[in-house]
Amino acid sequence: MKDFIIIKDPKVAKLFADPCRRDILHNLRKREMTACQLARLLEKNVSSISHHLSVLEKAGLVKQTRTLIKGNLVEKFYQATAKKFIISYTLSEGLTPGSEDIAKWSKETCRSAVENLPAFGYEIPVEKEKKLSELIEKYSSMKHIAFEQIISRQKKPVKVTGPPLRILLSLLETVRLYENKEFRRLMDEICEQLKSFKVT
Amino acid sequence: MKDFIIIKDPKVAKLFADPCRRDILHNLRKREMTACQLARLLEKNVSSISHHLSVLEKAGLVKQTRTLIKGNLVEKFYQATAKKFIISYTLSEGLTPGSEDIAKWSKETCRSAVENLPAFGYEIPVEKEKKLSELIEKYSSMKHIAFEQIISRQKKPVKVTGPPLRILLSLLETVRLYENKEFRRLMDEICEQLKSFKVT
Repeated sequence: MKDFIIIKDPKVAKLFADPCRRDILHNLRKREMTACQLARLLEKNVSSISHHLSVLEKAGLVKQTRTLIKGNLVEKFYQATAKKFIISYTLSEGLTPGSEDIAKWSKETCRSAVENLPAFGYEIPVEKEKKLSELIEKYSSMKHIAFEQIISRQKKPVKVTGPPLRILLSLLETVRLYENKEFRRLMDEICEQLKSFKVT
Repeated sequence: MKDFIIIKDPKVAKLFADPCRRDILHNLRKREMTACQLARLLEKNVSSISHHLSVLEKAGLVKQTRTLIKGNLVEKFYQATAKKFIISYTLSEGLTPGSEDIAKWSKETCRSAVENLPAFGYEIPVEKEKKLSELIEKYSSMKHIAFEQIISRQKKPVKVTGPPLRILLSLLETVRLYENKEFRRLMDEICEQLKSFKVT
């Protein structure tokens, strides 16, 4: 299993839009499982899971690891091909033909984030929502690009997962963004805006 | 189910050291499940899972949602009590009596992160490892404190999960750290150090 796979094909990226496929991939990153085991866990029928598995296998996101013969049944075990899949910024920014839907989804994600700012004590006047949403899109995009640049320059496999890997990647991303003057200007603007919306 | 629970009791935090308990909590955050279903998924025996569930229930991390009567068997369904559990920095910094092990584990996490820097093109001379590890501990600690401060000032439930929530929390954390002069000084020092260790 690779550490990371960066997905640059919009058709493959769109497979992640389906919650059931995301659930399958999530489980197959942790352990190898058969279609039957997945069906039982996710409360779906086996034929629907088998169909998803075949689509995910063709896209290179899962692979067969072994088969188990039980009477006259052959059970195939599957595993994800990477510990983490990253949708490339070239898709979420809509830079690749066919990635328009992904770019739209990415904008909606940022709008949703802005809409939930009141949960943390910020009240955004309606007329300011659009501007703030654009700033957060820029933030999210710069963060995404920094992360992808780090991943794409990986030299050797990482020997850890979980918390140490998260700290390492977060640190490298923060360093990269922190050294970028454009990011600093953006953060100055976001801090300024948010300060004025804070409810005490 | 609450959005977040901050764990401040070292005894409760230590329950997360066991990978099986982490797996149980991970699954019960997504759906309600019985001990039998968990045992099948995690390939453990039912009595061991039932024991873990009872410990997690006493600690307030899971709760029973409903029972299902099947013949003369009563199946109890469980769910996690929060979407995300956060171990308080007062434990990971060793500020609470009984949290020494947690603080030690947190230091080891940072050392592991440093040891994996070569995977991303940094070669750290042995004599510099300790200093860098300390800087990364400081980074991790400030990030942790900022995150906990945001969470602990939550005013209303959040209406999203997944990507929009991650962007929102990441933004609020970045804003908080960015406004902190001590964090800026730390980042200047980390950037300086890492620059000198980069292999081209």
